[in-house]
Order: sequence, then C-alpha cells, then structure tokens
Amino acid sequence: MRALVKESAGPGIVLRDVPVPTCGPSDALIKVHHAGVCGTDLHIWEWDNWASNRLKPPLVIGHEFAGELTELGPEADQDLLAIGDLVTAEGHVVCGHCLQCRLGAGHLCRRTQIIGVDRDGAFAEYIVIPASNVIRLDGIPTEVGAIMDPLGNAVHTVLEAEVPGSTVLVLGCGPIGCFAVGVARAAGASLVIASDYNARRLELARAMGAQVTLNPGSDDVVARVRELTGGDGVDLVCEMSGHPSGHAQAFAAARMGGRINFLGTPSRTTEVDFARDIIFKGLTVYGVTGRKMYQTWHQMRRFLRTGQLNPKPVITHRFPLDCISEAIQVIKDGQAGKVILEIGA
Amino acid sequence: MRALVKESAGPGIVLRDVPVPTCGPSDALIKVHHAGVCGTDLHIWEWDNWASNRLKPPLVIGHEFAGELTELGPEADQDLLAIGDLVTAEGHVVCGHCLQCRLGAGHLCRRTQIIGVDRDGAFAEYIVIPASNVIRLDGIPTEVGAIMDPLGNAVHTVLEAEVPGSTVLVLGCGPIGCFAVGVARAAGASLVIASDYNARRLELARAMGAQVTLNPGSDDVVARVRELTGGDGVDLVCEMSGHPSGHAQAFAAARMGGRINFLGTPSRTTEVDFARDIIFKGLTVYGVTGRKMYQTWHQMRRFLRTGQLNPKPVITHRFPLDCISEAIQVIKDGQAGKVILEIGA
Amino acid sequence: MRALVKESAGPGIVLRDVPVPTCGPSDALIKVHHAGVCGTDLHIWEWDNWASNRLKPPLVIGHEFAGELTELGPEADQDLLAIGDLVTAEGHVVCGHCLQCRLGAGHLCRRTQIIGVDRDGAFAEYIVIPASNVIRLDGIPTEVGAIMDPLGNAVHTVLEAEVPGSTVLVLGCGPIGCFAVGVARAAGASLVIASDYNARRLELARAMGAQVTLNPGSDDVVARVRELTGGDGVDLVCEMSGHPSGHAQAFAAARMGGRINFLGTPSRTTEVDFARDIIFKGLTVYGVTGRKMYQTWHQMRRFLRTGQLNPKPVITHRFPLDCISEAIQVIKDGQAGKVILEIGA
Amino acid sequence: MRALVKESAGPGIVLRDVPVPTCGPSDALIKVHHAGVCGTDLHIWEWDNWASNRLKPPLVIGHEFAGELTELGPEADQDLLAIGDLVTAEGHVVCGHCLQCRLGAGHLCRRTQIIGVDRDGAFAEYIVIPASNVIRLDGIPTEVGAIMDPLGNAVHTVLEAEVPGSTVLVLGCGPIGCFAVGVARAAGASLVIASDYNARRLELARAMGAQVTLNPGSDDVVARVRELTGGDGVDLVCEMSGHPSGHAQAFAAARMGGRINFLGTPSRTTEVDFARDIIFKGLTVYGVTGRKMYQTWHQMRRFLRTGQLNPKPVITHRFPLDCISEAIQVIKDGQAGKVILEIGA
Repeated sequence: MRALVKESAGPGIVLRDVPVPTCGPSDALIKVHHAGVCGTDLHIWEWDNWASNRLKPPLVIGHEFAGELTELGPEADQDLLAIGDLVTAEGHVVCGHCLQCRLGAGHLCRRTQIIGVDRDGAFAEYIVIPASNVIRLDGIPTEVGAIMDPLGNAVHTVLEAEVPGSTVLVLGCGPIGCFAVGVARAAGASLVIASDYNARRLELARAMGAQVTLNPGSDDVVARVRELTGGDGVDLVCEMSGHPSGHAQAFAAARMGGRINFLGTPSRTTEVDFARDIIFKGLTVYGVTGRKMYQTWHQMRRFLRTGQLNPKPVITHRFPLDCISEAIQVIKDGQAGKVILEIGA
Repeated sequence: MRALVKESAGPGIVLRDVPVPTCGPSDALIKVHHAGVCGTDLHIWEWDNWASNRLKPPLVIGHEFAGELTELGPEADQDLLAIGDLVTAEGHVVCGHCLQCRLGAGHLCRRTQIIGVDRDGAFAEYIVIPASNVIRLDGIPTEVGAIMDPLGNAVHTVLEAEVPGSTVLVLGCGPIGCFAVGVARAAGASLVIASDYNARRLELARAMGAQVTLNPGSDDVVARVRELTGGDGVDLVCEMSGHPSGHAQAFAAARMGGRINFLGTPSRTTEVDFARDIIFKGLTVYGVTGRKMYQTWHQMRRFLRTGQLNPKPVITHRFPLDCISEAIQVIKDGQAGKVILEIGA
Repeated sequence: MRALVKESAGPGIVLRDVPVPTCGPSDALIKVHHAGVCGTDLHIWEWDNWASNRLKPPLVIGHEFAGELTELGPEADQDLLAIGDLVTAEGHVVCGHCLQCRLGAGHLCRRTQIIGVDRDGAFAEYIVIPASNVIRLDGIPTEVGAIMDPLGNAVHTVLEAEVPGSTVLVLGCGPIGCFAVGVARAAGASLVIASDYNARRLELARAMGAQVTLNPGSDDVVARVRELTGGDGVDLVCEMSGHPSGHAQAFAAARMGGRINFLGTPSRTTEVDFARDIIFKGLTVYGVTGRKMYQTWHQMRRFLRTGQLNPKPVITHRFPLDCISEAIQVIKDGQAGKVILEIGA
Repeated sequence: MRALVKESAGPGIVLRDVPVPTCGPSDALIKVHHAGVCGTDLHIWEWDNWASNRLKPPLVIGHEFAGELTELGPEADQDLLAIGDLVTAEGHVVCGHCLQCRLGAGHLCRRTQIIGVDRDGAFAEYIVIPASNVIRLDGIPTEVGAIMDPLGNAVHTVLEAEVPGSTVLVLGCGPIGCFAVGVARAAGASLVIASDYNARRLELARAMGAQVTLNPGSDDVVARVRELTGGDGVDLVCEMSGHPSGHAQAFAAARMGGRINFLGTPSRTTEVDFARDIIFKGLTVYGVTGRKMYQTWHQMRRFLRTGQLNPKPVITHRFPLDCISEAIQVIKDGQAGKVILEIGA
C-alpha cells in the first residue's frame, strides 16, 4: 500500500510502498478515507528537537483519520463493530492497567503509544489499531471523522468546566482554538471571545461562532475582556496559543474564582505570579492532554450527529496523499485552518 | 479598653487605651479571651511593602480570636446566637452581593474587609463584627477557637480534593502546614509526607500525624516521594511554603492527573514549565484564599468537636497582650508553632 | 395601595386597599409592574388542605413579580442597587444561619419564609423584601422578570446535571416543564423530548425547542424514548408532572447510570422498585426545591440577557389586577401557559 | 480439580471433580486460596426465583476469592502482573464498549458477566478470568483479598459522598453494612451510627468503629438520629438492609440536602412520598451496583495496605470447601459475619 513514511532521522517525509499491516487478535484493520494534518506532523517533517528525541524511524506517520473497517481480530468485540462500518479511532493506545488507566484517566497513561509517533500511523491506505480504540461514525462524514482527534482536544478543553451560561475566552485561533469556539457555543456558553494575531484565523473563529474577536496587535485584550464582562473577567479561559503572552492574558482575563484550561504547548517556561494570579484569585488551572477515553468521544459524537457543532468551516485545504509537501507548506504559511489528506473512498 | 494599635505609618505596634467599639444593628460585640498571632501581624509590625500599601492607621490589629458574645444588634439572628455564647468569627467581612458572593464564593468577594487589616481587629479586649460572621464554639476551647482562622486555611486547602485513601505531600511546615498534616489524617489520607528545612517544624508535623517527614537540606524530596508512592507521585500536594523551590517540588512530586493546592504566598514570581508540569501531566492547580464561607467552618467544627483533629500540639507559646513584642520575636526566630495572646477569660 | 388579599380562611381572594408596606433597614421597597400567577396561587384561592395548614390570613398573596426599586433601607447594599433599577427578587426569604444556609444550600433553609405564603406578597402595587433577595434585571423586560421565579425552578432542575451533549426527557409540560425544555436546549442538550397529555402544552413545548413531543394518551413514551436513544434511555429525566405515571416513566426511561431530577410535587405516594429502578440501574435521583441562591439566578440572567433562552412563548395570557378570577379560571381550564398580571408600569 | 457446582435446576450445590479451566489469550489462571460466601450464593443454593431465572447450570459457583496467579495469556499485560503474584479480581466481566463502559461506568455495563453466576466461578481450586480484572494484593492477606468484592461494595457505597467530617447512618449490619461502618471511619466521618435488629451484628458494627448502635426493636431510630445530630439528621445514609422499614428510616433520618446511597436489594417495592422525602428535602439518592472499575479497588487497596481499614473482625467463620452446607447454614442462622472457604494455600 502507499504510505507517507519518515524513513530515517532528519527532515522530510516520503511516499513509499509498504506492506498492508497485519490485524492482530484484538485489532481492527481500517481502510483510510481521509486524514488530518496536524502541527505535530510539521514537527516530524522538520525533525525538531522533540521529534528527534521521540521517533524511531522508519515509521508511517499521521494520527488523525477516518475510514472503513475492513477486518476485525477474533478477540475484538464483534457486537458493536462490523466490517464495513465507517469509523475513526482514538490515536492514543493506552495500557489499561497503570494507576491512571485504573482511575479512569487513560488519557494520562504513562505507557501511551501514539499512532504516527510511537507506532505506524494513518497517512497510508490502511492502518491497524486496537479495536477498543475504534469509534463508529454513525453518519458523521469521514472528512469530519478525520479531524475528531483535534476536535476532541477542543471538546476536552471546553467541557472540563461548567459551560452553560458562562463567558469563555479562547486564546489562540489555530484549528483547535477555532474548534473550541464552536464547542463552547454548542455547550451553551453565553459569550465566546476569541483572540489571535492572525486575521484569517479570527475570521474562522467568527465562522465557528465567536461573538467577539480580538487581535492583540491592535486590541488591549484584557481591557476588552473586562469591559465585555462587567469588569469581572471571564469564567473560563481556554489557552490554546502556547505563548507566554497568552499565559499572561489568561491569568489577567480570568475572573476571581474562574478557571483556565491550558492546551497550547509552550516551547519555553513562563513566569507566573502565584500570589496575584492564582492564590488571591482562587483560580483553578487544568492541563489538557488528549481526549478523555471515551467521554470526550461520546460528547463529540453527540454534538456532531445533531449538527450542534459543525467543524467544517475550519477545513480550508484538501490534498491527495502525494501532495504532503504542499500540505505542510500551507500550514507553515499560517493561512490554513485544518488541512485534510484525501486518501481513499 | 486595652488594644494593640498600629498608630501611624511605620514599624511597631503599641498598647493603647481605646473606646470599646459600638455594636451596630446587625453586629455582635465579643469579649476577646484568646487571640492568635499570624505572619500577617508580623508584616504589619514591620510595616513592609504590602502593609504600607494596604493599612490605613490608626487601626487595632489582630484577626484570629475567640471569646464571649456580650451584645447582639437588634437586626442580628437572635435564635442561633445568645449572649454568653463562646464564639469565634470569620475575619473576612464580605459584601454578599458581588458575583463571587452570589455564586457561593464569598471568600473571593472583591469588597472583602479583613479585621485587623481593613477594619479594627481582635488584639483588644472587645471586637465588633457582623453577627453573620460569628461561629459558636459549642465546647471547643477558646484557645483553639482563636486559631480556627489559620486552621480553616488548612481545612480549605486539604478538603478541596478527594482525600480519603489519597497520598498527600505538605510542603512547608509553618503552623498552617502542620495543621494541613492533621487535617489530611483526619480526612482519611493514606499517607501524609511533610517537608521543611526546619527540624523543629518537622517535629510539630510529626506530632500532627505526618508519617514521613523530609528535610530538603538533606533529603531529595522528589526522589523520596516517588519512592514512597511506587514511582507515581502523590495525589495531592499542599504548597504551604510560598518558596520557588517548593513550587518546583510541588510540580515534580504530583502524580499524572494529580492536584496541587497552593496556599503559601510567594513574594516573587516562579518559572513554570507548563508543557511538562501542567499540560502533559493533566494536572489541576487550585489557589486557596481564606476559608469557604461557611462550609470550611462547618467541617472544621466537626473535626474539632469529635477530637478527630487536635491542633493543640502546634500551639507552642502563650503571652499576655502587653508582651506582643516578645510574641513577634519568637515568630521571627522561626522556632515557634502557633503563638497565642491571652487577653481575657 | 391596591392588593389581592386572602382575608380569612376559606376560598377566594379579594382586591382591597391596604397600606403601602414599610421598608425596613435592610429592605427594598419595589413598585410592582408585572406579576406571575402560579399553581400555588390556585391552591391558595381554593383553600385546599395545604393552604389551610400553611397560610395565616389576612395576607397579600403572589410570589412571582418584577418592578421598580423605589426605596432602599440604610443597612442595604447601596453600591449594587439603586433607586429606579428594574428588578425582580428571590421570593424565599432565608435565615442565613442554619446548617443548610451555612453550607450554601439556602434554598433548603429550614426557616424559609415565602412571600405571598408566609409573608405579604406581590399581587399588589408595592412589595417589601430584604434587599439581599433583589435581582437587577439589567435589560430583561419586567414581564419576563415576573416569571423568573418559575423559570428559575426549571433552570435549577435542568442545570443540576451535565447537560451539554446529553439527551433529556421532560415529563409534564406545564409552564415549568416548557421552561425546562428551553433551558435544556440553551444549555446544549443534544435531544430534548417532552411529554404531556395536553396537546396545547405540547405545542408550547415545541415552541420552546422540544425536538420530539409525546402524548402518553397515544404514544408509548418509554418505548419511543428507547427508540430515540438507540435503546439506552435518556441521560436526564426532568420529572415536572408530579403524577405517579410520570414517576414510572421517569424510572423506565432513564438510562443505566442516568439521572432523574424531580420537581413536580405529587399529591400522594408512589411505589418504587428500588432494586430494578435505582440500585441495579446505578441511578441518581435529586429533589428540586426552589432556586439555588444565587447561582440559579446568575445563570438564568445570563441565558435571558443573551437571548439564548426566550421564555415568552410560554406567556399566553395577561390580565389586570382586578381580573384575578379570570386569571385563575384560565389556569384551571388547562389551556394556559404562563398567566401574567399587569399591575403597574 | 475440586469445585462446588450447581449441577442442575433445583436446590443444593455439590462438590465435583471438574477440569482445570483453560487460560485464554487475554486471561489469567488463578489458584484459589480463600473464597468468601455471599448471600447471593445462598440464593443460588436455595434456587430461588432470581437464581432460576438467571443461572444456566451446570456452573461452578462463587464470586469472592483470592489466590495465586499461575498462568497469564500472551495478550495479557506482562508488565504489571507476574506468575506467583497473590491476587484477587473484580468478578464483573464487562464488555468495555457499551455506552456505560465508554463513559467510565463499567460497573453498569449492560453485558456484564458475573463469575459464579453467568460464568464459572471461584469455589474451586482454579479460576480463569480476564487479566484486566485481576488486582494484585501487594501484601494484603488472601483471606482479606477474598472479601474485597463485598468490601468494595461498601467502599463504593460510602465514598460516593463527601465523607470527611460528615455524619453517617448505616442501616443494616450484615457484612457489607459492617464494612461500610469501617470505611466511613477510615474516610474521616465524624459520627457513624449503625442500626440492625440483630444484637450480634451490632456487636460487629461496634468492632468496626460505629460510635453509636441502634436496634429498631427497642430504639426509635429516627428520633435518636435527630437527637445525635442536633435535630438536623445525618449527611449520609447508607441503606444496606433492603427492607421497606429501612427505606422509611433512611428518608426520615437524612438531613435537608443530604444523601442516601442504596445498596441493600429489597425483594419488593416501597412506597415513597416524593414531595416530603425527596423534593422538599432537596435530597440526592444514588443506587449502588458493584464496584467502580477500578477506582473503588484502588481506594480499597490503599485503605487495606495502610491498615486504616481492618475488615477482619467481620470474618466470623472459616470452612473447608467440602463443608459448604455448614457454611450456608451459619449464614442462614443470622449469627455469622463473613464466612470464608479455605481452599488452597
């Protein structure tokens, strides 16, 4: 089959013919229809510090996908899955036995294997994954199914708070930030403010339902948030930017007794004034990793199947598998929302 | 009446004769039996940056106390309080109407007036406070009643987590840290580890029930915590030290999916690696201000009245009102636990 | 002033001239613009068993209202309220000192005094109420303000659950049931099913956003709910009917691990199969009294001010104060949604 | 191997030689050391209505056990389990894929298979169970390991509430009720009251830490509870009796805003006054099935390994495998606490 492969240490990814993977006794084999390209794939392409420390080439990359179930191992659940089902999958393969897994926090499993990072991934015609990771689409199109991994990050970030009737500030309007805007609206937030330096991204945030968009290049974000919230600050900040300036705004914009959920991964440390920003403010801070397995998926499926949440406006580009370099380039250019690879059908 | 007064801007506190305060229509007048001396009183004595910005002398200081109810305004509740009751009081006088108060988070009221800081306090023979702030002791001795304010800080810090069966690390064993040790044990923690540089304080922590005490001067705190928790780290860290090194240990010692409750107020900022310490760890962080009004008081009264929690080992010194300078000195010396002023009877 | 008064034990209510009530030191005097007529007022009119045991005539009745703040006692908060503000008020006057009040559950205060039931009420040109019970409308029309009491019952019922993405069954589509439909939709429910025997009420439920309406007279409610939820049953049942048949449907329609919030007050006991319906189902059941003070009010204000929730379709009739008997009659006829008295302006 | 077998429909259980079960690819084979006899086994022995509807003989019975891991399938986790480990196991084998399993409520899986009920059980020299159900004892004796199933029911019942500082009433002092007493004390309850008609059981409840025991034959349970709680009622009722009179006491003894967790399975329906007992009381009711998988096991292991909870006083009888009829008889006589079968070593 055709697959995008990181062949060896160093930049780049190549299209290669590789064998179709074998479906183990508890596994599912899935024919990939669509796959999503993620910032992580960019790190892998560029072979940055993180990638060179983590990946062991050769490896098929890609971790966001959806397609058709074509084979099911004999130990896998035969009642809730069937050959021919259109499906996506949680890309974190967890152990099920460590403390975190046992406490219902499998997304924090210390032995997590991520597809396309620690084991062969989804930028290929077929992928094998444990059947327990598979999620039926039940009517959600595979193009949307292919982005349920990052969409799930947004669902996890937003729903780890009491959203109905609340005021929400989303800092950073990359694809996951834009998704967070849509999730907050779907979950009954009263006011969703989105902030980014990039005008194109603010446009996508508005398309996803942001009632107010701010550009820190021209707006005093914190002052505007205070103004829009009667001086109190917002109930919930979703920090999706990973920038120290985003952190500073997050702490300043959250109300007394409010909450900040951090998803954006910063590349360096941030100075925090614990007394002013956390202790005297009675703040709650939460770090978001992955998707809750599988509450996040359940809630996301509900939102998508009812149409309460439509992530399609965020999909801005589609490429065939052999145009991965063009796909990587539009992400680098910063004018893309979500970029999709069209692989099969 | 006799009272300890900050007469004017600058260091020191003086004993003066001042009028007994007048009991307003919704107020209670209380004859003070015992009062507790707090680090805050030390800041006020020394007239540091915080004190000079916040206090408006002349002011009777002191905010931890207990005594006898001697007068009740006509608008005050006459059913649940009676002249002659031994009582203590929440020292934060809150507005009841702001967003935080309306959401049940009165401890974060933006218009909080603290006795002994923003209005006349308790280092005096009598104090007036709104009757709704008064807490009946119902058998708890006034000497213990006099320290329910800082004890309540510890109760708030510890109980803002799921404690039964959990592992807890208390960083910093000043009086509130030592109280936190006792609260964690009373609330069913399985393992309480306490850490401080000061051997005398570690002794008090052990007296309060710490099963393991660590001294960062000689122990590798994080390595020892990992060892004691099967490599996982603790479920809950109570950060009571306010030191950047405490912060670093807190983040390193908390388990994946764990929690850090911060109470110790640092005097400067801390560098935080959000990616490693919060996001990938799925951590929850909570800032502790005051006492929940009045859940914290209710739980504390239960613990004290049953004897599940005995804070007396932490009381190391007792002085009459006119020995305030000696009281301040033993606190400065770092060899004191809780210091009590014996005022009336 | 003119007021509707229950003058003595026995059926009926009469329009009388009575003195304008006096504003106490912590009170607010409000000129009533609109008031809502409630089933409780019907019980009082008819002088049923409950009414004759509870009320001590003579008494001005009515507990749902909104109007203009015209006087404020000297002990009342002068910062957040001002003469001329359009306001409504929580009609449960609570003690603030009992166990429930101290634990943040003032809606369960054992010493609650309800306006129009235990103290003079709102079917009058003026009403006096503690200033702390007053809620500013900030742009919400007084006609809507007048029904925030029952709307708040619905907000309390629905939001005491995790609503975003959930499936909700509302049993009983009187005004509060219809409001619950709208609240569930505003809070991000994925599917709201409403059930009632009365076709007119089902029409109102649809107007409030119910995606499916069922009539137990012709539909097998439980079978239909199962069908609509893939066989699982709903996440949340809001039992607003108070009928034993509603109870049976509630237990049968809730999913394993689901939740039933009971608001509708039955006039007699119900047989419950605890093993089948509660224990083996892992169900959570919650009893709804009043409105959470004041979280419910805060969330409701947010929903109303943004337009996420529009309760106006439920208002079907309006009468002047002297047409109370007509107002009572349309409620008895069962063809009314919410009935409003237009008192002042 | 020797095993206790229900050979065919009808009363009784017989000791038979049967083949050692085969360890599947994801399974563990365990040599049983100790097993616990449960009320369920009595129902199976007597072949009552429930048993005849549910069981498909022939079947090895028994679902509470601990022993030594002797074989591990190739798909099973090889890192956290090792041959020779002393272990117990969750006896509910769940599907992992249904809605409840996906939402972290595997204890409510609709496709649950219970060992000794739906598949071969533990009253035998060996048992096979999925490796993911296995729990390492890590120092807990196998005799105690053998009762972690019913002990886990008690842990689930008690910890599904905020226990530290609370008042708890345990209704029904069979083994699980007695365990609940111990769990409540370990988790920091301030007052634990236990009630039963059987003096021997009240003795066991006292041995487990009940501060007050009541006998409904001679005590007015509700009046005494009110007296002991300052008139308020208890924060938490654990209903372990399954008797309608227990239900009535539970509702009457719970405080306003309190909670009742129901575990005792009644054989018939109960009349509930929803208005008085649930709605106006603002009560929360929760039905307890099994053990949370695997939070309950984690907390229980912590309690047992630290010695915070010692269930041994409840173990009153021990028998070899061939004395099952004597074991059943002491349970019938009502003078037993927990009855253990000593099978291997």
